Amino acid sequence: MSLPRIAVDAMGGDEGVRVMVEGAALARRHHDRFKFLLVGDEARIKRALENHPNMHAASEILHAEDVVSGDEKPTQALRRARTTSMGLAINAVKQGDAGAAVSAGNTGALMAMAKLALRTMPGIDRPALAARIPTLGENDVIMLDLGANTECDARNLVQFAVMGAAYSRIITGLDAPRVRLLNIGTEEIKGTDELQKAAAHLRAATGLSLHFEGFVEADKINRGDVEVVVTDGFSGNIALKALEGAARFVGDLLKRSFRSSLRSKFGFLISRPATELIRHHLDPNNHNGAVFLGLNGIVVKSHGSANAAGVANAVAVTARLLEENLTERIMADLAELQTGAVNGQAGASAGQQGDASK
Amino acid sequence: MSLPRIAVDAMGGDEGVRVMVEGAALARRHHDRFKFLLVGDEARIKRALENHPNMHAASEILHAEDVVSGDEKPTQALRRARTTSMGLAINAVKQGDAGAAVSAGNTGALMAMAKLALRTMPGIDRPALAARIPTLGENDVIMLDLGANTECDARNLVQFAVMGAAYSRIITGLDAPRVRLLNIGTEEIKGTDELQKAAAHLRAATGLSLHFEGFVEADKINRGDVEVVVTDGFSGNIALKALEGAARFVGDLLKRSFRSSLRSKFGFLISRPATELIRHHLDPNNHNGAVFLGLNGIVVKSHGSANAAGVANAVAVTARLLEENLTERIMADLAELQTGAVNGQAGASAGQQGDASK
Repeated sequence: MSLPRIAVDAMGGDEGVRVMVEGAALARRHHDRFKFLLVGDEARIKRALENHPNMHAASEILHAEDVVSGDEKPTQALRRARTTSMGLAINAVKQGDAGAAVSAGNTGALMAMAKLALRTMPGIDRPALAARIPTLGENDVIMLDLGANTECDARNLVQFAVMGAAYSRIITGLDAPRVRLLNIGTEEIKGTDELQKAAAHLRAATGLSLHFEGFVEADKINRGDVEVVVTDGFSGNIALKALEGAARFVGDLLKRSFRSSLRSKFGFLISRPATELIRHHLDPNNHNGAVFLGLNGIVVKSHGSANAAGVANAVAVTARLLEENLTERIMADLAELQTGAVNGQAGASAGQQGDASK
Repeated sequence: MSLPRIAVDAMGGDEGVRVMVEGAALARRHHDRFKFLLVGDEARIKRALENHPNMHAASEILHAEDVVSGDEKPTQALRRARTTSMGLAINAVKQGDAGAAVSAGNTGALMAMAKLALRTMPGIDRPALAARIPTLGENDVIMLDLGANTECDARNLVQFAVMGAAYSRIITGLDAPRVRLLNIGTEEIKGTDELQKAAAHLRAATGLSLHFEGFVEADKINRGDVEVVVTDGFSGNIALKALEGAARFVGDLLKRSFRSSLRSKFGFLISRPATELIRHHLDPNNHNGAVFLGLNGIVVKSHGSANAAGVANAVAVTARLLEENLTERIMADLAELQTGAVNGQAGASAGQQGDASK
């Protein structure tokens, strides 16, 4: 069976065409059966491909006149879906001309375009943005939603749990990843009504390929004892950015204090291999590639400031998800969820009442 | 004018009486005009006081039979308000027998007891829990609410802004601290309706002793360019715990990598003065003392795991707030807010509609 192509929006991102093409070429070293559709300014893509002959042979170029800018409102960007590199990359997925799209452009615009063009898959009410976060354990943790939906009801959260677990199974190889709902305490009475309903539903559901383990507080996301953290887009965005900000804060304090005396500069030089390990562990490039889950097609967001290695990670994630049939897996799990809901009474009522309770 | 006493719940906290009494004694070195009401098991408090003769002279003991346990539900604890050290410490504030209470006990119980006994001050609908968070700048940032209110409307958020600014003015000495609302983006259209209404109100308000500067994302809380971050209790709790968790995560990674080789162990020893500075900066004991704002009386929560230096910081915060008349300051600011709301049209309507819009 031949694998579907990956459409790359070559124009998004702070660094532009060169980094996107180089990143895709790097990813191709480990996923060499993949072919690419590079979307954007033809002349610039051709120039970038000159340094990557193997990539050149595996790529087709789709010329796009226009680029979605970083500060453009999603509603504006939607109007230019037929001329921009982002719009055309997503359209290629819609037409079946590619199996997935990767973009480093404007997140809001990407989300709006992807939703409109690809629609949510059967059984999913809203797509969610999922990212990988480093932990002290062996596996990254998947957190979703990170901003696609400011407010979510119990039904949305349950669907996010199923989608996040399917994604986690692919990257961790686990049969049943541990899933928790982000909350402000672990007692059953904590949090909003929607969180409690979602927890009741997940506890009652049977046959799902995940272990639901209740709530998790935000200081335990990184400990390595949960594989999927489910939350609404507002809280998820707050948690993700707080984690990023605190890591940067500690890094800045370290730099400042290592520079504070000759002695500590010397100590820093000696312990450099150790601090380089940490830098590598915390480098966002190594966890790059946030995935929009729940659409009829795979759309991956690469960070705007990612370097070529970061883009390569985002493309490699995309390749893995295609190889492992993420979309089909989620659909199969959703079928189980319906069954599970019938088996578990609390689950069934929570699931059914999801919409009415908003 | 004689200063009011500080009531100390001597029984709360993981370490118990000894640490609470030692902490109060440490704080008293810098605030030696204060007197204390130590509430709890009389025999144990007496024994703890033997090591602190100065403190002994400045203290009265109020015997309490009972202790609120760490896992007790707030509703249960409320029923034992007349026999527990926590309940009696708060009651002392209510009776005017003390100006403020400090406890390291169960947060939920403390909040419930404080609210019921002291009631919210005129002009405040709901109290909020505010904590100090370290930054790269000169001043700590104040963040509130951190869990007293799972859901908040625009009116609550505006009141939190006024209370947080009053608190910040006392600890920073600034005339008008910079205040921002925590959000998932800085554009005006981002976030929930309630956030947008609160922002409109704060933009329109005049005469307040604060600079409202719009929204802040969670990765910018620590940068040192905002003094007060206002949010609902759910998001605030998520953000605070994510910050704490990430700082601990980076610390654990550091330890692990410094231990990974003889060379890095050696480097670590040499740069120890630098890493000790960071440890000091990040040590929660140095930022201990979360304040319940908006009640008729001051109630300060010391972290359950705080050491004596940590308790001393919580008691010192309490002393500063009493010396600087926090409660009166907030009332004066609220009076300004009414005027401001009349001046600013968007503000007035947002303020008035706060309740109806829930």
